[in-house]
Amino acid sequence: MSVRELVVLGTSSQVPTRTRSHQAAVLRWDDEVVLFDPGEGTQRQLTLAGVPAASISRICLTHLHGDHCLGLPGVLQRIALDGRQKPVDLYFPEAGQEFVDRLRTSSASGPGPDVREHPVAADGVVDTWPGLVLSARALDHRVPAYGWRLVEPDGRRVLRDRLDATGLAGPEVGRLLREGEVVVDGRTVRVEEVTEPRRGQVFAFVMDTRRCAAAVELCRDADLAVTESTYLRTEAHLAQDYAHLTAADAAGIAAEAGVRRLVLTHYSSRHPDEQVFADEAREVVPGLDVLAVRDLDRVEVPRRR
Amino acid sequence: MSVRELVVLGTSSQVPTRTRSHQAAVLRWDDEVVLFDPGEGTQRQLTLAGVPAASISRICLTHLHGDHCLGLPGVLQRIALDGRQKPVDLYFPEAGQEFVDRLRTSSASGPGPDVREHPVAADGVVDTWPGLVLSARALDHRVPAYGWRLVEPDGRRVLRDRLDATGLAGPEVGRLLREGEVVVDGRTVRVEEVTEPRRGQVFAFVMDTRRCAAAVELCRDADLAVTESTYLRTEAHLAQDYAHLTAADAAGIAAEAGVRRLVLTHYSSRHPDEQVFADEAREVVPGLDVLAVRDLDRVEVPRRR
Repeated sequence: MSVRELVVLGTSSQVPTRTRSHQAAVLRWDDEVVLFDPGEGTQRQLTLAGVPAASISRICLTHLHGDHCLGLPGVLQRIALDGRQKPVDLYFPEAGQEFVDRLRTSSASGPGPDVREHPVAADGVVDTWPGLVLSARALDHRVPAYGWRLVEPDGRRVLRDRLDATGLAGPEVGRLLREGEVVVDGRTVRVEEVTEPRRGQVFAFVMDTRRCAAAVELCRDADLAVTESTYLRTEAHLAQDYAHLTAADAAGIAAEAGVRRLVLTHYSSRHPDEQVFADEAREVVPGLDVLAVRDLDRVEVPRRR
Repeated sequence: MSVRELVVLGTSSQVPTRTRSHQAAVLRWDDEVVLFDPGEGTQRQLTLAGVPAASISRICLTHLHGDHCLGLPGVLQRIALDGRQKPVDLYFPEAGQEFVDRLRTSSASGPGPDVREHPVAADGVVDTWPGLVLSARALDHRVPAYGWRLVEPDGRRVLRDRLDATGLAGPEVGRLLREGEVVVDGRTVRVEEVTEPRRGQVFAFVMDTRRCAAAVELCRDADLAVTESTYLRTEAHLAQDYAHLTAADAAGIAAEAGVRRLVLTHYSSRHPDEQVFADEAREVVPGLDVLAVRDLDRVEVPRRR
């Protein structure tokens, strides 16, 4: 059975604390291991979380503030040290290219792994992976920032009983799914007869931003959405000044977008108890499935409906 | 009473572990707070150790391999964020200038504090601080690396009984210590009459290197010497190939140099129990005052003899 889960590596915003390492999260999605915003300390947090560095297939950066990217050099060095054979795809805002260049050459520790860079300069589809489409939208932060959205194309789910009734087996089933129909004993079996539509799953990752339409579009119908939640409503003036979300903002975005499960992270150090963020979100949107995660938590992508 | 102690922030070599953050240590020496080799994660380790980032007055880098410097950007950002008013002096091998430049500009997180750079290109005295002289010597590593040595100039200790017998008090005592003699009631009191020589204390910090004469000279008569101890004797071939010390090497250096207390750190992840390093050092040099430190340990500079 395939694994689709978020592994939380760090949950602090600018200032790490005794219990919170800098922002970082891994999405395990079937064969893909996608690292989002590796803040400082990510290399060690991977060890604490039991995620092998060499398994990381993609890295997405929302923006180039230090708390979202200073772990990149160490992660790349470690990926190379651990002997990853395949390339790593790196997605980031094009405006941050100079910082990416420096991060990738910031120490004498060797060339790192084979990295394919994907600078992003406009909203839209960024890349298509096997069974997933990555797109980006510009957020509203103090430096150029993009949120990320992963969409699994809609597919079809096999109805075992009906398939068995056709007598089809082995490679013929694959041909049916690929080609739409096969002939069995002179009768044409169409794929619609033995399958039902299966909606693809959606994941969204929205970091530093004021509340904006792009955040809602990124989270639209997401099964799992991760958003920053730096402040509480009582600090809305700080959220506005520093271009961040409050927990209430995040809940509002999730409700507007129809998010199934919302994960809050990237907390200000002024709030040692992260549950205040989940409490505020539930107050604003009663019944919301919301988790204020802690370092090393794991969150399943909710099962298909 | 002045504080002279080493605060251990991280003890891993290239690969951090569940219990070991990357290499980093702070020397608290009266009013100076000197950070040595801030590996990744140093910013958070400072919090765990209770050392305010804004108190850091100097930073010394032995070399620019990632495990010794990737924490620099985060530390500098934090020093600025926490509002340090005075400049920070940064000492490093001149050959690593390009990496220092990139580390200091590796993210969009602002200019950082006022930093005075001191690139070092030759053995000898690097800087003179109030009551301390910093010198450097080139080590034998795979990239240009310098070890650091801090020497407190010899002084004189006041012998209270003899001072009281002269009847001297208040500002006259300061004048005696500054000028060497004062006249009291027609009699000349010389500083030698009321004081005895006091040897200055010495601290040494020796990281990645093969065993070499420079390491011994750096540690000469040190009250406290910190050295890397990546491997054990059984791995001497690795130490040679990768230009590192074994615990036995470190003990040999300490014995040859007359070190009073030796601190071992920078361990290979293949040895989860750091006590094997202290055991080997004591086996090689029976009676050696040696500590194989762990993250967040504190080690006093031994009291004056």
